[in-house]
Amino acid sequence: MKKALILLGCPESPSQTPLALYTAHKLTKIGFEVTVASTPSASKLLEVSDSEGFYVNKKIDLELCLEDLEEKEYDLLVGFVHKDAAVSYFVTFYHILNTRSIAIVFEKDSDLLEKFLNDLKENTDATLISARAYHNPTPLRVKIDKAFKVLED
Amino acid sequence: MKKALILLGCPESPSQTPLALYTAHKLTKIGFEVTVASTPSASKLLEVSDSEGFYVNKKIDLELCLEDLEEKEYDLLVGFVHKDAAVSYFVTFYHILNTRSIAIVFEKDSDLLEKFLNDLKENTDATLISARAYHNPTPLRVKIDKAFKVLED
Repeated sequence: MKKALILLGCPESPSQTPLALYTAHKLTKIGFEVTVASTPSASKLLEVSDSEGFYVNKKIDLELCLEDLEEKEYDLLVGFVHKDAAVSYFVTFYHILNTRSIAIVFEKDSDLLEKFLNDLKENTDATLISARAYHNPTPLRVKIDKAFKVLED
Repeated sequence: MKKALILLGCPESPSQTPLALYTAHKLTKIGFEVTVASTPSASKLLEVSDSEGFYVNKKIDLELCLEDLEEKEYDLLVGFVHKDAAVSYFVTFYHILNTRSIAIVFEKDSDLLEKFLNDLKENTDATLISARAYHNPTPLRVKIDKAFKVLED
């Protein structure tokens, strides 16, 4: 079974936890075994949202995951990026894993959004999905569906 | 079957959608038929989080729900309050329904939190649960569990 790793940083935006649940479920339905690596606060929000583990069943601490990470350990890396720290984590995981990678970049401020996208373009060849999202998850959801369509084929 | 109505306003805080899913599921397990009345943005976040409708299956627009609302139509009202508008909605629903009511009040700013609590105390006899919550859902989750314990008995 193919393995996917989802990266979740600090949950500033109200869209992050909902989109992470959506993405994890979507990848599971496509046939991936999904692990979510997250900060403690992002992990608590996942647990409260999905109290029966219906959408996410494998979770790991972001730092612990990084310590033991090996090249090609996962077939797909999907990172949620809406902070500088999340850009750094994504770039680090990207270079260690050296596998197919997608960054989902969202931020209210358009200058910051552009900065994150430029940083990712300069440091990775990942597929980039982005929107000026905060409350409304729909623009990102539609782009995630499109990007994942390729994985189904 | 007893009926519960959960009120959800504008989803500013990253905790609201996760706690709403948690609360809906908890009430369902206790034996309530749960309906979530929410603003369009809060509703989209619920749909993306819970794409299979595992935790929430009855949803209605907040304004539409209010138009047709009748006294005692629900056996329990649970409102998430972290804005002035949410205080007003809760008070309105409270007085029309005239039923057992719980307000879950959360806000980062302690002055605002106190203001919301005072407004609710002055205008209702609802049970109030509160925390200075934003990222971390745990303090509210623990208090919700305690408050709902009474409903199980």
